[in-house]
Amino acid sequence: MAHPLASGVEVLAFDIFGTVVDWHGSIVRDMAQLYPAVDGDAFARAWRSGYKPAMARVMSGELGWTLIDDLHRLILDGILPQFGLAHLDEAQRRHLNRVWHRLAPWPDSVEGLTRLKRKFTICTLSNGNIGLLTNMAKRAGLPWDCVLSAEVFRAYKPDPATYLGVARVFGLAPAQVMLVAAHHEDLAGARACGLRTAYVERPLEFGAGHRKDVSPAPGNDLHSTDLMELANALGA
Amino acid sequence: MAHPLASGVEVLAFDIFGTVVDWHGSIVRDMAQLYPAVDGDAFARAWRSGYKPAMARVMSGELGWTLIDDLHRLILDGILPQFGLAHLDEAQRRHLNRVWHRLAPWPDSVEGLTRLKRKFTICTLSNGNIGLLTNMAKRAGLPWDCVLSAEVFRAYKPDPATYLGVARVFGLAPAQVMLVAAHHEDLAGARACGLRTAYVERPLEFGAGHRKDVSPAPGNDLHSTDLMELANALGA
Repeated sequence: MAHPLASGVEVLAFDIFGTVVDWHGSIVRDMAQLYPAVDGDAFARAWRSGYKPAMARVMSGELGWTLIDDLHRLILDGILPQFGLAHLDEAQRRHLNRVWHRLAPWPDSVEGLTRLKRKFTICTLSNGNIGLLTNMAKRAGLPWDCVLSAEVFRAYKPDPATYLGVARVFGLAPAQVMLVAAHHEDLAGARACGLRTAYVERPLEFGAGHRKDVSPAPGNDLHSTDLMELANALGA
Repeated sequence: MAHPLASGVEVLAFDIFGTVVDWHGSIVRDMAQLYPAVDGDAFARAWRSGYKPAMARVMSGELGWTLIDDLHRLILDGILPQFGLAHLDEAQRRHLNRVWHRLAPWPDSVEGLTRLKRKFTICTLSNGNIGLLTNMAKRAGLPWDCVLSAEVFRAYKPDPATYLGVARVFGLAPAQVMLVAAHHEDLAGARACGLRTAYVERPLEFGAGHRKDVSPAPGNDLHSTDLMELANALGA
């Protein structure tokens, strides 16, 4: 039986990095092939940890509006020397930076989304840019109805313009949109705007050596181990 | 064999109203069910003929940025009295206005797009808003990789910001993007920005009583009778 909360929801908006795709595992695998001497686990976490500070520089006005592809490149150029890769040329850096377009879905993502799509409109709501999200979806088989991004709203999550932007795009009230994410901060931002929220456990987001606390937070409408369980809970 | 022009093209961007979906026939069918006393053919053409003037009012600055859903409603409210429908209440007007979300694809569209999607990234490039295009695609089974719209670029076609916006979103040169449309004016706008262009004949766009001249124009890279023939020409 569907969760009673599902009755008014028409759109499910998904966080992507960590929630739908495994950025850590994908980068570790790519690095093992490209630069096997480098500690891929440390490299992936160093790259990702530059992400929020880089977005903060944009949102503070220090940097103009910047696509995530370009922020990823900025951070990459910064960390390469620490990993003995300062010698990489432009083509190698460009290829490595595109790993974010090649991220692999978690094992349950494609089937879970396919089920959820039968009952809801499913879209991305990611700080990743549209081209990145589209290339990723095409390669991984993620069946989005629509690719929404910080790029559409010219603001990064957790800016309210992003969450409210999804409702506005579809002509809906905020409570008719549910954000699905593996990050409590993201869900709290959506909840403050009146959206419904579903947490998805992704204990391995940062790798098996750095298991994440996936305890339930009190404010979320739903808490699921993965997207198949979310589909069950929503009667899809 | 694929057309030699296809070699560098990575993204096909599609005009929607008239090119992928049959707005005239869909509105005529809806009107026959809802208001059979009204001349559906004249009604559909009157509604559509208000479209360009309404967009011109936005682009001139007379109106602020307006979604096509709202422009459609503005035009609808204006023409209802001429068709004896001034008495329609808010819910009836809202339902009728949503006919643009319910437009049916031409018979070749879904299969043609499905073939083209195997070889190219396929996206919309329509003045229709994102919600409208997403609802339409979900209902009709149009398999877009990505829904792009005037709403993303805050400009209507034929503004260069829309054509160049597609190339920018995907990090491509304009010549790696091909616009597919049934309207020479749209294609001319794209060509002026360096995009490649494919014309699709839709002689019945304005109904069987108002056949359109579908003669080839000299500037287009390709000229196809429908999307299946376009897939053949592009080797998809």
